[in-house]
Amino acid sequence: MNFDREMESRVKETEAILKAYLPDESGWARTVMEAMNYSVNAGGKRLRPILMAETYRLFGGTDKIIEPFMAAIEMIHTYSLVHDDLPAMDNDEYRRGRKTTWVVYGDAMAVLAGDGLLNYAFETALKSFGMPGSDADKKAAALSILAEKAGIHGMIGGQTADIEAENLGDQVTQEHLLFIHEHKTAALIQAAMMAGAVLAGAEDAQVRLVEKAACEIGVAFQIQDDILDVTSSLETLGKPVGSDAKNQKTTYVTLRGVEAASQEQREMSDHAVKLLESLNQEGFQNEFLIELIRSLITRIK
Amino acid sequence: MNFDREMESRVKETEAILKAYLPDESGWARTVMEAMNYSVNAGGKRLRPILMAETYRLFGGTDKIIEPFMAAIEMIHTYSLVHDDLPAMDNDEYRRGRKTTWVVYGDAMAVLAGDGLLNYAFETALKSFGMPGSDADKKAAALSILAEKAGIHGMIGGQTADIEAENLGDQVTQEHLLFIHEHKTAALIQAAMMAGAVLAGAEDAQVRLVEKAACEIGVAFQIQDDILDVTSSLETLGKPVGSDAKNQKTTYVTLRGVEAASQEQREMSDHAVKLLESLNQEGFQNEFLIELIRSLITRIK
Repeated sequence: MNFDREMESRVKETEAILKAYLPDESGWARTVMEAMNYSVNAGGKRLRPILMAETYRLFGGTDKIIEPFMAAIEMIHTYSLVHDDLPAMDNDEYRRGRKTTWVVYGDAMAVLAGDGLLNYAFETALKSFGMPGSDADKKAAALSILAEKAGIHGMIGGQTADIEAENLGDQVTQEHLLFIHEHKTAALIQAAMMAGAVLAGAEDAQVRLVEKAACEIGVAFQIQDDILDVTSSLETLGKPVGSDAKNQKTTYVTLRGVEAASQEQREMSDHAVKLLESLNQEGFQNEFLIELIRSLITRIK
Repeated sequence: MNFDREMESRVKETEAILKAYLPDESGWARTVMEAMNYSVNAGGKRLRPILMAETYRLFGGTDKIIEPFMAAIEMIHTYSLVHDDLPAMDNDEYRRGRKTTWVVYGDAMAVLAGDGLLNYAFETALKSFGMPGSDADKKAAALSILAEKAGIHGMIGGQTADIEAENLGDQVTQEHLLFIHEHKTAALIQAAMMAGAVLAGAEDAQVRLVEKAACEIGVAFQIQDDILDVTSSLETLGKPVGSDAKNQKTTYVTLRGVEAASQEQREMSDHAVKLLESLNQEGFQNEFLIELIRSLITRIK
């Protein structure tokens, strides 16, 4: 398997699915639709929908029912970035080399574009009820997972704890930081993979296993972000490095040092892979998914 | 029927339902939960959940399945106020005589509290799937109505057009203004009444009739707001009057004058009542609902 080529084709497929589900830009409310599409079309790894589709495949899923859910999770991820970038939050002017949504459309429209994306994510996932490929209870279960992991007991909870951490400075504990990573970053990875599993008909114990693995994948992914902020360059990363140090932000790296942080994220990633490979004996296998997970902690951007 | 006493008891019932569905305040993300509950507990007419419950009753609904949906629509309404009040939007410091969410918790937390409420609205409505009283397809249909009417083709679309109107000053046309009212205000009234109808098992034609009536109710309600801004006082209204004139905002009243605006809203309200009363011959009747609708355009706050 040529991983890079496979990945490229997965990204292309995902972009096409996203495009099909993004709103038309028309009417009196055209501007918010433009701002939403601008935000989603800014690019990115499309990691969450790809992890969702690959977990769906792992458990034997083959239907188009996964597509509205793929679009929905990328909309949720994007809305969180749009709101995070606001002057009221991180006040970031650039992301992925492009001006952030509020810089282009103003803060009021960026608030609405974020709201619009979150709301549209649910509208989009709800379209699955008109599609074949899974029964209504499974669709509702996948929707509930998406909602719970995106909300105050998931991603929004992590963002809240992150804001609280800023006021604590170097008083932030490793326990607090782990809570942030598990919620702000890992919860949406969990939502992606668990929803994929549920829609493919995975059993409860299998969904719990995926939840555990996805948590480790998410935290390892976030630690790699923190490591790259120390070890990479603007050219490679596409955004300023050293921003955590500049903002005196406590991260896994400031708490544990680069070496120990690298070691820990490798262990988490290895353990997540081991968990998923334990499904082989039940007949569930997806080599590309394993490669993808391994690639997340060796990535350079 | 003593309408005021009946209404008071409906508000109390609704407050109890809301309370049961609001999140516990605990853990690392406690602050966002506090901010959400602060926002919802600021009071208000609870008009949307009450209209939902009464439309559900109109079509013979008697189950508790309506309750998570009642909580959900009030959360959606509240999130829209929390975000509207932000410095990036209307920059309002007071609402219903209390400090707005961003004033108490800061803008970052207010952004998250709004996001949290919108997301939690869907989490809450999704809880209906574990409850008896309606089949899965009806629950999904009610959820889809809620999502669509709250989103860019509903309320968020109206907010967008409202922001655009501010830049147009006195160039705003009556057509543009009607779009704003139909979406920013009426769409959520439609969501409330349509979801109530669908969950009670109303037929498509009946749901369409309710959609039409709810649109007129919503627009008439908004015009009454505009009228009160001109004719009421701070003491009665609980918020500053004359704010539309101060902000040089084009409203139904500035476009048509108080008298013509009053006349038009009365006509809309009467027509909505007539539509709903036409259901009597099919055996559907709810006297309290009709009284409630009539009260909305004679209210003084």
